[in-house]
Amino acid sequence: MSVNLDQLCINTIRTLAMDGVQKAKSGHPGMPMGMADVAYVLWTRFLRHNPGNPAWPDRDRFVLSAGHGSMLLYSLLHLTGYDLPLEELKNFRQWGSRTPGHPEYGLTPGVETTTGPLGQGFANGVGMALAERFLAATFNRPGFPIFDHYTYAIVSDGDLMEGVSHEAASLAGHLKLGKLVYLYDDNEISIEGSTDITFTEDVSARFRAYGWHVQEVDGYDLGGIEAAIRAAQEETERPSLIVCHAHIAYGSPNKQDTAGAHGAPLGEEEIRLTKEALGWPAEAHFLVPDEALAVFRQAVERGQQGEAQWREVFERYRAVYTKEAALLDALWAGELPAGWGDKMPVFNPADGPLATRKASGAVLNSIASALPTLVGGSADLAPSNATLLRDYEDFQSETAAGRNLRFGVREHAMGSILNGMALHGGLLPYGGTFLVFSDYMRPPVRLAALMDLPVVYVWTHDSVWIGEDGPTHQPIEHLAALRAIPNLVVIRPADANETASAWRAALERRDGPTALVLTRQKLPILSESARDPAETVARGAYVLADSSGTLDVLLIASGSEVHLALEARELLAEKGVGVRVVSMPSWELFDAQPESYREMVLPPEVTARLGIEAGVTQGWGKYVGWDGDVIGLDCFGASAPYKVLTEKFGFTAQAVVEQALRLLGRE
Amino acid sequence: MSVNLDQLCINTIRTLAMDGVQKAKSGHPGMPMGMADVAYVLWTRFLRHNPGNPAWPDRDRFVLSAGHGSMLLYSLLHLTGYDLPLEELKNFRQWGSRTPGHPEYGLTPGVETTTGPLGQGFANGVGMALAERFLAATFNRPGFPIFDHYTYAIVSDGDLMEGVSHEAASLAGHLKLGKLVYLYDDNEISIEGSTDITFTEDVSARFRAYGWHVQEVDGYDLGGIEAAIRAAQEETERPSLIVCHAHIAYGSPNKQDTAGAHGAPLGEEEIRLTKEALGWPAEAHFLVPDEALAVFRQAVERGQQGEAQWREVFERYRAVYTKEAALLDALWAGELPAGWGDKMPVFNPADGPLATRKASGAVLNSIASALPTLVGGSADLAPSNATLLRDYEDFQSETAAGRNLRFGVREHAMGSILNGMALHGGLLPYGGTFLVFSDYMRPPVRLAALMDLPVVYVWTHDSVWIGEDGPTHQPIEHLAALRAIPNLVVIRPADANETASAWRAALERRDGPTALVLTRQKLPILSESARDPAETVARGAYVLADSSGTLDVLLIASGSEVHLALEARELLAEKGVGVRVVSMPSWELFDAQPESYREMVLPPEVTARLGIEAGVTQGWGKYVGWDGDVIGLDCFGASAPYKVLTEKFGFTAQAVVEQALRLLGRE
Repeated sequence: MSVNLDQLCINTIRTLAMDGVQKAKSGHPGMPMGMADVAYVLWTRFLRHNPGNPAWPDRDRFVLSAGHGSMLLYSLLHLTGYDLPLEELKNFRQWGSRTPGHPEYGLTPGVETTTGPLGQGFANGVGMALAERFLAATFNRPGFPIFDHYTYAIVSDGDLMEGVSHEAASLAGHLKLGKLVYLYDDNEISIEGSTDITFTEDVSARFRAYGWHVQEVDGYDLGGIEAAIRAAQEETERPSLIVCHAHIAYGSPNKQDTAGAHGAPLGEEEIRLTKEALGWPAEAHFLVPDEALAVFRQAVERGQQGEAQWREVFERYRAVYTKEAALLDALWAGELPAGWGDKMPVFNPADGPLATRKASGAVLNSIASALPTLVGGSADLAPSNATLLRDYEDFQSETAAGRNLRFGVREHAMGSILNGMALHGGLLPYGGTFLVFSDYMRPPVRLAALMDLPVVYVWTHDSVWIGEDGPTHQPIEHLAALRAIPNLVVIRPADANETASAWRAALERRDGPTALVLTRQKLPILSESARDPAETVARGAYVLADSSGTLDVLLIASGSEVHLALEARELLAEKGVGVRVVSMPSWELFDAQPESYREMVLPPEVTARLGIEAGVTQGWGKYVGWDGDVIGLDCFGASAPYKVLTEKFGFTAQAVVEQALRLLGRE
Repeated sequence: MSVNLDQLCINTIRTLAMDGVQKAKSGHPGMPMGMADVAYVLWTRFLRHNPGNPAWPDRDRFVLSAGHGSMLLYSLLHLTGYDLPLEELKNFRQWGSRTPGHPEYGLTPGVETTTGPLGQGFANGVGMALAERFLAATFNRPGFPIFDHYTYAIVSDGDLMEGVSHEAASLAGHLKLGKLVYLYDDNEISIEGSTDITFTEDVSARFRAYGWHVQEVDGYDLGGIEAAIRAAQEETERPSLIVCHAHIAYGSPNKQDTAGAHGAPLGEEEIRLTKEALGWPAEAHFLVPDEALAVFRQAVERGQQGEAQWREVFERYRAVYTKEAALLDALWAGELPAGWGDKMPVFNPADGPLATRKASGAVLNSIASALPTLVGGSADLAPSNATLLRDYEDFQSETAAGRNLRFGVREHAMGSILNGMALHGGLLPYGGTFLVFSDYMRPPVRLAALMDLPVVYVWTHDSVWIGEDGPTHQPIEHLAALRAIPNLVVIRPADANETASAWRAALERRDGPTALVLTRQKLPILSESARDPAETVARGAYVLADSSGTLDVLLIASGSEVHLALEARELLAEKGVGVRVVSMPSWELFDAQPESYREMVLPPEVTARLGIEAGVTQGWGKYVGWDGDVIGLDCFGASAPYKVLTEKFGFTAQAVVEQALRLLGRE
């Protein structure tokens, strides 16, 4: 291939990016222009993908962590033959287009993850590489390399400044994820100007310290870029960072190397000048020369052949490893293996009280064998979160079929890696920490919700009742803050059986993340809670104990406070007050029920309603109404033994009784 | 001093920690036992502090970033003579004690910051060192070193795994904060076991890559520790990390070097064995030998003398630099300089529409000269957040009196550094990013609220109306999630004048953080909003425009949606509907008003109420009631031009009118 044809192809990317952003009057042209050469080499000489089937399980993954450069990705997807017509590029950033401002997973074929919030793509890629490694170790057999692909990413200065990239890089180095190849757009420009004003660390030395293989290349030396990617592939023990010395808005006579080219169109005049400088027809817009398109479109046939060869191998694999192949088929279809929940434990009140975190651990260990790709761990709190699968090894470089992940004290990376694992497909990922530290991982939780990813969070130590550790460790606002995230289902079970049902609901939910909010302290096991999960937890709320006579008051509670409600019900019954206790483990699941069910559980005519939950009262109004009230905690907690705190904060059966009587005007 | 006396002192710390945790039946003995030697050398040979006055402005700062080792700090505070009697150590982790599970700023004299959530203390210390550097450059004069102190911290494996420590370390290295001296408890144990399972990076190389000065010492070689701290002090260009090779639960025959010693009492028997091994009376509890106490208590007189000398210098300074000294006195008293707000701009409707982020920039630049220690910046979004003080330099190593901080794309560190700056005292810190990225900094925002720190957040691009950048950049749940945090005041002003009043409220609030939530898009300036700030924004909500006749409907809105309410009011008036528009920039400020005011603004008898806000509806029920409704957004946004989104998401005057009529039964 002649140098000129290479340049023609590269300038096609460059000009499409300029034109797309200009037409939208909004966007980020500088990055695509600067990294067009690197991307071109990667996509035409290395990337193993099939534009005709973006779901091919063994494709290489490509992550544009610097998501603001979305026009780079859209251009590549269009040019290599994905179902993304040129018309869509002209509709960049418009309502209903498949070319939104930042790449969105699920919307655009070939987009592997939603990026834009910096650092996320970096860590998603680590999750994808981890998934590949686990699946290869678990399913590959001699002569059957079912899983054998690279994970590439383009990462930016901004990605590398974000803490989550440090966390993920440190873990990737530890795990020796050698098939991770990251191309760093070292353009020395960020929004506020030169990176000299804040980012002067020695990035190469830093990544070497994490155990990475580091190379540096000129971002416009195609041979050098190719050699570096090849060397990165050959390095199998260490993840690779290729530092690409690049120039933002490369080719623009007046805007190259300026922060002004980062987040705004170049302007018609500058685009004209740039095209002239590139030897491009100055007045053409969205021009794709046939010769260039032909080069890119070779991906279509290469991809078909590549996948066909793989499918041939997989069919031979299926003949020998029938069970494994059937499992993979189910997982790729987003299904759970049949009968997965048969070993779900049922807990008996006679077993004595059990913390819901412990119940969760028992559930995990009961179902683990039926779900061979249930893989997860904790951010250094496995003994507390009860997330360990006891019969399985750790996932480490030497034991990559291990199912216990050791995330370290890296909650943020954990969240983003879980997303990457879910995005890769084939895995059922979960991760744990204390509920209060869900704050450390909110950005990836939000993205899991936005991407409809089936990730499960095991957030334990769910209230002020953790006691002595004090307010830094006592969640107060976290239930409300998590319920505020669209498409995140939050479940706070009241006992061991509700916990089992919560796990069932979480795993069966294939189109979004689920948070399990669990106690540190022991809770009695309820005789009622072992009922059909579909009629209890899966409904979000249900009648746990009813009045035997008239219905005067509704006590609505979640988690540990359900037991307080039951206690108060007994006391109120003695005073002739008819009380219904509603266990409400999940607002989101309850709100999704038909009105008839909701009104059956919470009859509109009963307006004396008391919510009970050890957290901020925000949002409870929609269940208790203006005539109702909530026993909650709208302040931070304190360090003291649990039982002392229940007294001090007014979470006693007596307090509930008094408040209920007050609602009835019977003080 | 004899080696034996040193050991006696060190073992006093060690045994107090063991005994305190054992008595509480809860806590973390391993870290204090392991780091007792290092802490002893630092506190008796270096730390310049005055136990009699923990507020001495020029004291050295000591941060226990590994806050779970709180008994180490409480022991040191007690032993060196702070107002923390031995009785308090015996009350460790009990209700009402000054020795909570994790150190809490404001509760215990000598505790410089609340720690426990890992990584926070590390970054707080960077903020303190930054504050010292700025204040020294700004206020010191030849012969008057008013600000000249070190910032020390003990940091743990967990701290160094957290992304926020990476971010903060990178920035500290860039800024050449040479007076930062961190002692790293390299004990190779975390909760899940050996750090070998997840944390194998080369920490020393990593910190060198950030531009730090790194040394390694034996954590039990007193001379070596002393020499290393001295070398760290002598290194003035680079922050120092001293890697202390230490053993968790040092001295415990059976628990040393085990994860079991991290977070649980050793047990009576093991404590007895440990005391025997240390040559300590095995049956004594909370024993403080007189000879040891005498050594530690030298801090009292040394501290008095140190502060007295400093006060003498400060008084001479005051004589020459009257204005500067008066300013410092005010700041140390938590007050703003008199007349600080005189230059607050007033915006005129005739000036045309203005984005509230731009109004915020105008405010900042107007008041900057009257507030010489107003210092802040943005996480690489200064041009978008309008946070730059145009007449002032950047804060850089060569220009340390500069007032513009360049945080880089490091939102989390920004939040924690702002906390450190506020904790140091003397500064009025602020920091900006997009509202959606407040998620990246929630942990320090929570801690600012918990610590009552007067930090101001400038969170712009506050809704789906940012348009083309799409759902990754469009905050939906963030207002609700932030309002859920106790003691955080959230203000979303409706125009430029409300923005000025919001800044006034934020700066005058000296006992907690304030979030300013600002638009990207332009908003008209309202003629009503220039009224007395004390009667508008400071009230949280106020009547912006009232019905001229009967009052049929309340339209309650914040920020940009106030203008929609005003528009709808006109249309409804044409239909004979009497509408009051309530501008509600802050729930927290409104909820703090007397009931009489709240009922004046929102008369209970008017139940046709419509809330309007471009975000999740969670929590609005308390203002609109069961008979009211909310026009909000309970789903993620989309990438498209702003005006298109207003139509698609139903935020039009027509939609408001229809909904209001529906509430009145007049569809």
